Amino acid sequence: MPNRLLQALVGDPETAALFTSEAEIAGILSFESALAQAEADAGLIPEAAATAIVAACASFTPDYDALAVGMARDGVVVPELVRQLRAAVGEHGKSVHLGATSQDAIDTSLVLRLAKAITLFEDRLAALGRSLQDLSARFGTQPLMGHTRMQQALPITVADKIGNWAEPLQRQLRALEGMRRSLLVIQLGGAVGTRDGLGEQADEIARRLADHLDLGFATPWHTQRDPLVDFASVLSLVTGALGKFGADVALLSQNEVAAIALAGGGGSSAMPHKSNPVKAEILVTLARFNAGQVGLLHQALVHEYERSGSAWTLEWMVLPQIVEATGAALRIANELVIQVSFKL
Amino acid sequence: MPNRLLQALVGDPETAALFTSEAEIAGILSFESALAQAEADAGLIPEAAATAIVAACASFTPDYDALAVGMARDGVVVPELVRQLRAAVGEHGKSVHLGATSQDAIDTSLVLRLAKAITLFEDRLAALGRSLQDLSARFGTQPLMGHTRMQQALPITVADKIGNWAEPLQRQLRALEGMRRSLLVIQLGGAVGTRDGLGEQADEIARRLADHLDLGFATPWHTQRDPLVDFASVLSLVTGALGKFGADVALLSQNEVAAIALAGGGGSSAMPHKSNPVKAEILVTLARFNAGQVGLLHQALVHEYERSGSAWTLEWMVLPQIVEATGAALRIANELVIQVSFKL
Amino acid sequence: MPNRLLQALVGDPETAALFTSEAEIAGILSFESALAQAEADAGLIPEAAATAIVAACASFTPDYDALAVGMARDGVVVPELVRQLRAAVGEHGKSVHLGATSQDAIDTSLVLRLAKAITLFEDRLAALGRSLQDLSARFGTQPLMGHTRMQQALPITVADKIGNWAEPLQRQLRALEGMRRSLLVIQLGGAVGTRDGLGEQADEIARRLADHLDLGFATPWHTQRDPLVDFASVLSLVTGALGKFGADVALLSQNEVAAIALAGGGGSSAMPHKSNPVKAEILVTLARFNAGQVGLLHQALVHEYERSGSAWTLEWMVLPQIVEATGAALRIANELVIQVSFKL
Amino acid sequence: MPNRLLQALVGDPETAALFTSEAEIAGILSFESALAQAEADAGLIPEAAATAIVAACASFTPDYDALAVGMARDGVVVPELVRQLRAAVGEHGKSVHLGATSQDAIDTSLVLRLAKAITLFEDRLAALGRSLQDLSARFGTQPLMGHTRMQQALPITVADKIGNWAEPLQRQLRALEGMRRSLLVIQLGGAVGTRDGLGEQADEIARRLADHLDLGFATPWHTQRDPLVDFASVLSLVTGALGKFGADVALLSQNEVAAIALAGGGGSSAMPHKSNPVKAEILVTLARFNAGQVGLLHQALVHEYERSGSAWTLEWMVLPQIVEATGAALRIANELVIQVSFKL
Repeated sequence: MPNRLLQALVGDPETAALFTSEAEIAGILSFESALAQAEADAGLIPEAAATAIVAACASFTPDYDALAVGMARDGVVVPELVRQLRAAVGEHGKSVHLGATSQDAIDTSLVLRLAKAITLFEDRLAALGRSLQDLSARFGTQPLMGHTRMQQALPITVADKIGNWAEPLQRQLRALEGMRRSLLVIQLGGAVGTRDGLGEQADEIARRLADHLDLGFATPWHTQRDPLVDFASVLSLVTGALGKFGADVALLSQNEVAAIALAGGGGSSAMPHKSNPVKAEILVTLARFNAGQVGLLHQALVHEYERSGSAWTLEWMVLPQIVEATGAALRIANELVIQVSFKL
Repeated sequence: MPNRLLQALVGDPETAALFTSEAEIAGILSFESALAQAEADAGLIPEAAATAIVAACASFTPDYDALAVGMARDGVVVPELVRQLRAAVGEHGKSVHLGATSQDAIDTSLVLRLAKAITLFEDRLAALGRSLQDLSARFGTQPLMGHTRMQQALPITVADKIGNWAEPLQRQLRALEGMRRSLLVIQLGGAVGTRDGLGEQADEIARRLADHLDLGFATPWHTQRDPLVDFASVLSLVTGALGKFGADVALLSQNEVAAIALAGGGGSSAMPHKSNPVKAEILVTLARFNAGQVGLLHQALVHEYERSGSAWTLEWMVLPQIVEATGAALRIANELVIQVSFKL
Repeated sequence: MPNRLLQALVGDPETAALFTSEAEIAGILSFESALAQAEADAGLIPEAAATAIVAACASFTPDYDALAVGMARDGVVVPELVRQLRAAVGEHGKSVHLGATSQDAIDTSLVLRLAKAITLFEDRLAALGRSLQDLSARFGTQPLMGHTRMQQALPITVADKIGNWAEPLQRQLRALEGMRRSLLVIQLGGAVGTRDGLGEQADEIARRLADHLDLGFATPWHTQRDPLVDFASVLSLVTGALGKFGADVALLSQNEVAAIALAGGGGSSAMPHKSNPVKAEILVTLARFNAGQVGLLHQALVHEYERSGSAWTLEWMVLPQIVEATGAALRIANELVIQVSFKL
Repeated sequence: MPNRLLQALVGDPETAALFTSEAEIAGILSFESALAQAEADAGLIPEAAATAIVAACASFTPDYDALAVGMARDGVVVPELVRQLRAAVGEHGKSVHLGATSQDAIDTSLVLRLAKAITLFEDRLAALGRSLQDLSARFGTQPLMGHTRMQQALPITVADKIGNWAEPLQRQLRALEGMRRSLLVIQLGGAVGTRDGLGEQADEIARRLADHLDLGFATPWHTQRDPLVDFASVLSLVTGALGKFGADVALLSQNEVAAIALAGGGGSSAMPHKSNPVKAEILVTLARFNAGQVGLLHQALVHEYERSGSAWTLEWMVLPQIVEATGAALRIANELVIQVSFKL
């Protein structure tokens, strides 16, 4: 988001909070902490090392300036972060990040935060569903002129209209729920995604890591980005459905159509008489924004060799924007729906 | 596809055959035929009318030049097609298309053809899975240098490599299977998507229509395009996975890397010594092509009012291309996989 | 274009004719013929060889089935075409394509056809400009309610409205004219884009080739695709401007707004009373279509090494579609503009 | 940019500084200040009012929290900012923003900042051109294996390679220079883009405004967004050319190819022996990122009526990202080029 005023319009603080540097590092530290516990459980590192690492991760504050330098040099933040964390752990420092690679830490941190996004979005979708139901309870039996190809067609009811807004959202709510199993899994593969650095107990460690983090177990998926892209596609289906809702509200609120009255439209610097359907328009904006971003994220599926610096970094630039735009669209739709009245 | 030479490289005749004018019209005639039967079953039109319509649909050859004129004028082919079909049916002509609208015929025709695409793609994904398994059986235990960020990393095995190619394809095969229920359903809504023109028996007629066409029942989804876009997203996940396969094969086939030998590479007009990894490159092309198209298709979710001429037509321009590119990528991947040998 | 009915709606036969296999081959034969003349002029091949090649190119009909096989194998049509052409030329066959590579023939063939597209589009833009001027002459002084953010704002005049439609088109017409010098140039580089195969006279041959083909001279630009992408960007600015025109016409033609009356709207299969603004909607469709395609074409700028099979083939799939959609939008806009009347 | 660590890798502080809230507001205040002067020059407002407004704009610090609230409500920041500014000006407050509208202030603020971006990018392109020339001076005569379609082809020279990197950048540098005249112009149209609120002296005021801001004069272009999209397209041609440079460097730096040695590659958390071509990879990332964004920006050309809230807001979300990604790519390319040595 280029600036905080724009953020006030098209952003969402709750979602944005999942994608700050601090949130990313916190997720990485959760990973390193849980990995140490899992490795101690399996006997790969001493209990004392795990205890020291867990304690350090709980209290550690990284030097962000040095992290930024490391990020610019290495293309990933983990080498410098692990260096700092090892220093903080002291004697047992060499047990930090053992057998893991940058991607394990970064992907698992991402998944931990996407879990929170899913919960947030499920809640907002459910709330929006209830508001749409309320709106239908209030106005559903009223007639409403149907329009096809931008021309008056035949009358429908308000309930017909609201049903077409609500049904795709219900489907995407179910899709999000179903995605928990495929998406919310650990990443643990080591240098080239084979868990070679973890020895015989590799899979056991992976299972324990998953348990500690309350995520599912999965074989390494370093180069298999389809669950992330699938998730983003579902989010774009959400914003697409909300864009259709917004487009309809803006059309039905036209002065000449006047089928919807909006409480609290936006003001103009030149025309005090106006009441603009700002939230409805922004839903269209966010739908188009996510449509563009999701196409770009699909480009990142072409992930060469055992790790693509190019494709992976593209993911970092695009996926958080899709998630935040979805959070924003859900926030705005929940605000808009209670401003809508249908006129007779 | 701009021309038939390009089609020979990046097209797929079996998939393309689903999207010709003739295939589209055949699907529409199946719809009109089944609708007449369903309406006669429910007593909305006389049995004799249904018999006449079914017979006419079975033998009818439209005047394509007149259809093209109608298409350019009306934005949809159905008004002119129904006019021709009513004339062909004669006495019972007014029972043709009763209570339906253009979108019912066009969307249902599309779904009938997507059903065939899904079967075709499931078969090709299964075949590709078997070939990858065979490849792994032959070479899986061989060591292979792993590369991250375009640099040599640590050794993996050929089986590790092939596993990362195969797993996303298995997931998308399951996704396609799961999609049959959500995607392969009738469209029947009438003028404004409310089934008002079908009277009391509307839902009964819809159920019988679904049975006659071997599709699922669904409430009208005229403006709810998410199942189509979801389908296209899965197809782009398929081509994305194949693009990764292609990228890896092209990289591993570099003269300087020489980890893969390809039987049957492409020739050059200037350098007879060359053997180009053409099929591998084309898989990358098709992955990028579909990534772009799928983003564009998400734009078509913003479907204003009860029917958007703009958004719907965009769907027509984009979705068939995604499906055909997927068919082509699966065809090419199946050809490529048997040309691959891993060198020691 | 997936099928010919869709082509009747969103295609353009004149533009499409530039991108058939036949047109592509004709362009390649023009290149080979002119190259032979240029090489004979410079003494690289005998006059008799040039005479034989020019004669063969003028009368040659390739075996398209064999070309398709070659295309699928080699990724380019030229090796097989050159083989056929050499056989047709007979004794002097080895002088065909001397020092050139596939890309020289294909890129130059493309440029020859883009020259025709530019002329066609300039003519259509000029015609549209005149029609808009006529419309302004008829209705320009009439008041028209201005709308911002989908709400009535303050009155403007019809001339204000038409001016905003026309000005971007005038700018893009000038941009197209300016592009003739940068875009309409030969490609001649040989195997790796260095003209090494043409010896000392390489640049002389290139200059003579340019003269024979009435194109500009240029150093080899095998991997420098920016002029093509720049051209496509301008075309998308054209369709974007026409999409804005279409969006406005559809909005002003709404029954509830009724500021524009459209002669010859499209009919509906379910609602005979309707007159749909089909051409206006399609202009929006084509604007969105080209916006998506042009983004995809920018992806093809990442053209690895001395020739990228992946990126180049992506260009082949996308650029012709952009050009044809532009031709279609210009055709439709010219049809629409004369259907428009402004109501008082 | 989702977070500051990512910013350290793929961002550019100098460019980002042009798109903060503070920079946007500063640009708006420059507009309001210059407008007051122009209106006083033309006698529309008293000299004393202009003096008061200029003074207030020079020292004014807005209440950003209230601005954020206004932005969320009105969809634009200007109504609330003008309210605050009028209060700060006091007695002459009603002369603030007279005859102007939000879009005048926002678009002109944008243009003022794009002027700085153009200067910055011209400087960086020139510096990069010099570095490439230096590189060619050092290594240009060395042979280098040329590759086509990912296979060894025939030798070229390092100078051939560098020439293909440099030429598109030279073209885009000239394109940026040429764009100053079309892009760097004022926006002044008032409520519906007709300058009606400025009376007879409207064009005189506009000319004086342009002079005060050192921008070109232009008729109102509220709905004509093509110069902005054209600018963004040129930026994507820049990042596309840099992406090709990055792709080549990454390929030539492969251990197996070893034609380029890179000083200062990135480290790995799991494999201390590695030296990753991070900057080269990021250039590919940024090229693909901008390709996607530029397609999305073309979607915003469909700008309905006299002002589209949806399309305009989409521009705000996308254009700054394109500019910043271009700044970052130029920064990184300038860093990378001096790390490159060609090996014999």
